[in-house]
Amino acid sequence: MPVTTAPTPASAPAFAPARPHIEAWLADFQLRLVQQLEAADGGAVPFITDLWARPGGGGGRSKVLEGGQILEKGGVGFSAVFGEMSEAAARQLHMPSLGFYATGVSVVLHPRSPRVPIIHMNVRYFEAAGGEAWFGGGIDLTPIYVDEAQARRFHEQLKAVCDKHNPAYYSKFTRWADDYFYLPHRQETRGVGGIFFDRLTVGQDGSTDELFAFVQDVAELFGSAYTLIMSENAALPFTEKEEAWQSLRRARYAEFNLAFDRGTQFGLQTGGRTESILMSLPPRTGWAYNPAPPAAGSAEANTLGWLRKGVDWLDHA
Amino acid sequence: MPVTTAPTPASAPAFAPARPHIEAWLADFQLRLVQQLEAADGGAVPFITDLWARPGGGGGRSKVLEGGQILEKGGVGFSAVFGEMSEAAARQLHMPSLGFYATGVSVVLHPRSPRVPIIHMNVRYFEAAGGEAWFGGGIDLTPIYVDEAQARRFHEQLKAVCDKHNPAYYSKFTRWADDYFYLPHRQETRGVGGIFFDRLTVGQDGSTDELFAFVQDVAELFGSAYTLIMSENAALPFTEKEEAWQSLRRARYAEFNLAFDRGTQFGLQTGGRTESILMSLPPRTGWAYNPAPPAAGSAEANTLGWLRKGVDWLDHA
Repeated sequence: MPVTTAPTPASAPAFAPARPHIEAWLADFQLRLVQQLEAADGGAVPFITDLWARPGGGGGRSKVLEGGQILEKGGVGFSAVFGEMSEAAARQLHMPSLGFYATGVSVVLHPRSPRVPIIHMNVRYFEAAGGEAWFGGGIDLTPIYVDEAQARRFHEQLKAVCDKHNPAYYSKFTRWADDYFYLPHRQETRGVGGIFFDRLTVGQDGSTDELFAFVQDVAELFGSAYTLIMSENAALPFTEKEEAWQSLRRARYAEFNLAFDRGTQFGLQTGGRTESILMSLPPRTGWAYNPAPPAAGSAEANTLGWLRKGVDWLDHA
Repeated sequence: MPVTTAPTPASAPAFAPARPHIEAWLADFQLRLVQQLEAADGGAVPFITDLWARPGGGGGRSKVLEGGQILEKGGVGFSAVFGEMSEAAARQLHMPSLGFYATGVSVVLHPRSPRVPIIHMNVRYFEAAGGEAWFGGGIDLTPIYVDEAQARRFHEQLKAVCDKHNPAYYSKFTRWADDYFYLPHRQETRGVGGIFFDRLTVGQDGSTDELFAFVQDVAELFGSAYTLIMSENAALPFTEKEEAWQSLRRARYAEFNLAFDRGTQFGLQTGGRTESILMSLPPRTGWAYNPAPPAAGSAEANTLGWLRKGVDWLDHA
């Protein structure tokens, strides 16, 4: 049964007057995105809803679809949490204070077909107890098989959203995504990148309204860009061999999220709800020992060739 | 084709005269253990051998079996590495210096049947550039379904090995295992524990000979204790429902190794060979969202009841 109101952290210390507005927009955005994804998946399988409270303050609303027509597993999480984090967590997360407030929407979608890419999106707003406030977020696309035209279009869409707000954003944030969504032990990027940004600080980098408008546009792009890819690729045929490659790429995704992702670390270290944090993990995967590299010239080898930093997708038109 | 000599880090700075002896014993122990496991698995599927060099110094020999009769995937790794680690790695690993030498044998076995437990063993010897040298190690058992008599016997065997060397070891090291092999975000131990020890420091905690004798006895116990469990449990029947529970428990194992295990972090941060470090990960697994807790009174609920710190297995005789 869908829930239409977000849990409100009524006792949260109020730092910024914009906080309730940002939180309410994100909670509503989650509902709209879920409707859009349900419809794109065919409408037969609804997202289920779990409300949760964080013992230290705040809570969230997790929406999860499993066994959809196109989406094997998809999670869209909203949360608004606050309180005090441990000194160790604050140090590791480079927080200027122990007291914090954080709200955001996170999405990871694992489609059934190896022809449809995994995708991730996050938008978030933070306040530290000293009064500092900032936005962060990003979208990155992880194709099992890179479709070069789709990857280029995805980057063009991101650039258009960035350019609307700041001509420096796209080139800075796409490099940041390459650096962030990187598996150092594999010397591979997670996928074909996208954008990543953090600490867009109110005052220093723009007004609350300006920065929030950018974050809203990033969030709104996500649904239209991804449901287009779903509609284009979901009916493409695939083989068992391609599913085995999908399983390997999903294992890389799990490696990144568990061993490197700062969002996962933030959630686990600040007492977030485990099942909501780890709903990004793939539904079926596994680790074979030292699989043979793909044959030269194969579609798998072509994909691996794109999993590197510094690809300028807009230069491949 | 099996290789019978270990790569010798000829140019390693020599700190302790015992180093070559310890390294050679570990390299030989790996070969003997692999023979024992191959025979216990039925002898039809051999471990394959990969030699690898670490660019910063040293290398290792990985032995891996996949698709055995009992063992779906098993890795037995020997390594002897040395060089300088980054300041960040030294800080995170609490190393007294950047210069280090480390040698050890690590084992993780993933049996096919949910009736046969996952098991892990590690023995290791470290030297820091300042002259400090220490031993570490441990064994822990991760049943998919806890067999209480086997868990008790396993702890009795560990206690006997500990008691032979120091009457304080077992109670200290079994508590340490509970604390180390713990998933804080799940509030679960990884399995029924075992022993874990680190920084058994030469001089302070015993002579090199005394400490190495303890570590050798821990290593030698592993093969006999585990092959006995293999022989007892491998032929027991199991159901698809029990395999689904195995997949969930394997996912917990992957969560621990990727997000919390210091051995994995040490390997990835010091430029170890990725496929050798991650050969501990399960061959088939997956993450469903928020699976329903096992029904009260079920075998799965009984197992969960044992996955907590502070169980005194020797008090359940």
